[in-house]
Amino acid sequence: MEYRRVKDQESYDDLSQKDVESLSGRSLSSANATATGLSSVGGAKGKSSWKLKSVVTLALTLLTSSQAILIVWSKRAGKYEYSVTTANFSVEALKCLLSLAALSRTWNRHGVADDNRLTTSFDEVSVYPIPAILYMVKNLLQYYIFAYVDAPAYQILKNLNIISTGVLYRIILKKKLSEIQWAAFILLCAGCTTAQLNPSSDHVLQTPIQGWMMAIVMALLSGFAGVYIEAIIKKRPSRNINVQNFWLYIFGVIFNLVAICVQDYDAVMNKGFFHGYSFITVLMILNHALSGIAVSMVMKYADNIVKVYSTSVAMLLTAVVSVFLFNFHLSLAFFLGSTVVSVSVYLHSVGKLQPQK
Amino acid sequence: MEYRRVKDQESYDDLSQKDVESLSGRSLSSANATATGLSSVGGAKGKSSWKLKSVVTLALTLLTSSQAILIVWSKRAGKYEYSVTTANFSVEALKCLLSLAALSRTWNRHGVADDNRLTTSFDEVSVYPIPAILYMVKNLLQYYIFAYVDAPAYQILKNLNIISTGVLYRIILKKKLSEIQWAAFILLCAGCTTAQLNPSSDHVLQTPIQGWMMAIVMALLSGFAGVYIEAIIKKRPSRNINVQNFWLYIFGVIFNLVAICVQDYDAVMNKGFFHGYSFITVLMILNHALSGIAVSMVMKYADNIVKVYSTSVAMLLTAVVSVFLFNFHLSLAFFLGSTVVSVSVYLHSVGKLQPQK
Repeated sequence: MEYRRVKDQESYDDLSQKDVESLSGRSLSSANATATGLSSVGGAKGKSSWKLKSVVTLALTLLTSSQAILIVWSKRAGKYEYSVTTANFSVEALKCLLSLAALSRTWNRHGVADDNRLTTSFDEVSVYPIPAILYMVKNLLQYYIFAYVDAPAYQILKNLNIISTGVLYRIILKKKLSEIQWAAFILLCAGCTTAQLNPSSDHVLQTPIQGWMMAIVMALLSGFAGVYIEAIIKKRPSRNINVQNFWLYIFGVIFNLVAICVQDYDAVMNKGFFHGYSFITVLMILNHALSGIAVSMVMKYADNIVKVYSTSVAMLLTAVVSVFLFNFHLSLAFFLGSTVVSVSVYLHSVGKLQPQK
Repeated sequence: MEYRRVKDQESYDDLSQKDVESLSGRSLSSANATATGLSSVGGAKGKSSWKLKSVVTLALTLLTSSQAILIVWSKRAGKYEYSVTTANFSVEALKCLLSLAALSRTWNRHGVADDNRLTTSFDEVSVYPIPAILYMVKNLLQYYIFAYVDAPAYQILKNLNIISTGVLYRIILKKKLSEIQWAAFILLCAGCTTAQLNPSSDHVLQTPIQGWMMAIVMALLSGFAGVYIEAIIKKRPSRNINVQNFWLYIFGVIFNLVAICVQDYDAVMNKGFFHGYSFITVLMILNHALSGIAVSMVMKYADNIVKVYSTSVAMLLTAVVSVFLFNFHLSLAFFLGSTVVSVSVYLHSVGKLQPQK
C-alpha cells in the first residue's frame, strides 16, 4: 500500500454532485466561453499554446512512467521503514514550496498583479478543500474493496477510471468528443486492460456485485476528481497556475498533517519525522511532487482526456523500460494491448471535431 | 487435422505472383472500372446491391460460426473414422452440384444466354485450376510449420492472415481503404488475437525465425488466395456467379480425386467411400459446401475485407454460442478482444472513403 495515497493523486480532488451542479450551472459556462475564446485566437498564440500543451503532456508522461519504475526500484532495493503519511505530507509540502518558488520568481520579474496575487476571495478558495475531503472517501473505499476483489483484479478494475473520466468530462464539462474519439476512448480502456492481462486476471469475472459497485463508485469518484480539478482551474483562465496550485496543495498539507497526528503520531515522536528515508524515498517524493504539478499543468493547458492518454501511455512506457532495467518479460497480451492503445492515440488525434465557426 | 483441408478453404485458391501481376495489369483495371461504374449507378440498383451484400455477408457469418460448432460437436460425439479426403471430395462435388442446380433453374426461367452459358473459353477457364494447385503448397507448409510452432501458437499466428489480406487487397486489387479503415483493420487483427488468448499463447513469442517465416508465407498465400478469387470473379462482373463457381469447384473435385487415389485408395476400396460417415459428418459437409458458396458470393457482391470481418465476427459468435451449448467459459481476454473487434467493425463502416465524383 505504500504510496497508494500519492499514486492515486488523481483522486485527490474529488467533488460532490452538488458542487458540480452549481459549478456547471454557474461558472463552467464562463469557462467554456473562455475556452472558445482562446481557441478562436489562433495564430502565434494558438501555436505557443499547442507547444505548452505538448511540453506539459510529455512531462506528465515521463514523470508518471518513472514513478512506477521508482516504486519497483525501491521494492527491489529492500523494504523501507518510512511512514507513508509523512511521505505524503512531504509531497504536498514540496508542491506548495515549488509553487511559491515559481510565484516569487514571477513577482520579481513582473511584479504583483491581480492574476498572480496569493491573497484570494472566499468565493475562489472555498472549492479547493473539497477534493481533499472527498479524497478520504475514496481512500476509505479502497480499504473495503479488497474484501471483495483481489489485487490483480483491482488493477484491472481501475481501468474503469478511463471510461468514467470520459463520461463525466462529457456530462459535467459539457465538452464534446467526436464519434471516432469516443471509439478511441473505449479502445484506450480495452487496450490498457489487455496490456495488463496476466493468468490470474480472469478472477475479475468472479467479482461479486458489491465489488463491482464499489469499483464503479471509485471510478466515478476518480473521474469526478479529474473533472473537478479541470473545472476549478479553468474557471479562472487568467489566474496564475501557481496560485491555483498553492491553494490546491495547501489543503493537502493540512489534511496530511491531520493524518500524521491520527495514524503515526507516536512513531513520528519516537523515531523522528524522516525515519527510514533513503535516497530512493527522496527521489520518489520529488517525482510525485513534480507529477502532481504536471497534472495541474495538463488540466490548465490541456484537459482530462489528454491526462488519461498521457498516463496510459506512461503505463506502457514503464513496462518497456522495465524490460531493460529489471529483465521484465513482455507478454503477447502486452503487445496486443499496446497496439490497441497506439491506434487509439492515432484515432483520437485524427478524429478531432472540426471547430465550428 | 480433420477438416483442415475444408476449414482452410480460403487458402484453396492461391495464386502465383506472376498471375497476379498479369491479372492486375490486364484485367483488374477493367474490374476496377466496372466496380466504379457499379457504385456510381446508385438509386434502386445500389440499394438492391447493398441488400444482396448484406444477405451474403450474414449467411457467411452464420455458416462460418456454425462450422466451428459442428466441429466441436463431432469431437464431443466421439471420433469419426471417415476419410478426410473423401469428405473434402464430397464438399467440392456438392458445391458443383448446387451450382449446376442453381444454373439449371436460371436456364429454365430466363433461357441460356452468353452470361450463364456453361461453355467457356480457354482464356476464362485457364486461371481457375491455379488455386487448386497452389492450395497444395500451403497444405504442405502446414505440415512443416508444426515442427517449429505448437497448435495454440499456430492459432494465434493465423491472425496474420487478416493483415496480409488487407495489404494484398490494397496492392493487387488497387482498392483504397481510408486511414480510419486501416486503423480498424489493425484493430481487427489485434482484437481477434486478444479474444483467442489463453495461458499458453505466450509460446508464440518463442517461435523461431523459421516458424515466423513460414507463418508469414502462409498468411501471404492465404491473402493471395482471397484476393485471387475476388479478382477472377470480379474480372467478369456480368458473368453468372454459378458458372464461375462451377469452374472454380470442378478443379477442386479433380484435385481431391487425385488426393483420394494417392492417400486413401486402399481404404476406400476395402471399406467403401462413405465408411464412418455419420449424421454430423453429413451436416459438416453440407455446412462447408454452403460456406464455400457464401465465400464466392461475398467475393462477387462484396469483397475480401467484408469476408475477413465476417469470419472474424463468426469466430466471436461461435464462442458466445459455445457458452450455452458446451458450457464454454469466456475469458476476460475474450471480452476485451470482442470489444476491440466491435469498435473495429464500427470504425470500418464510419470510416468509408467518400466517393469522389
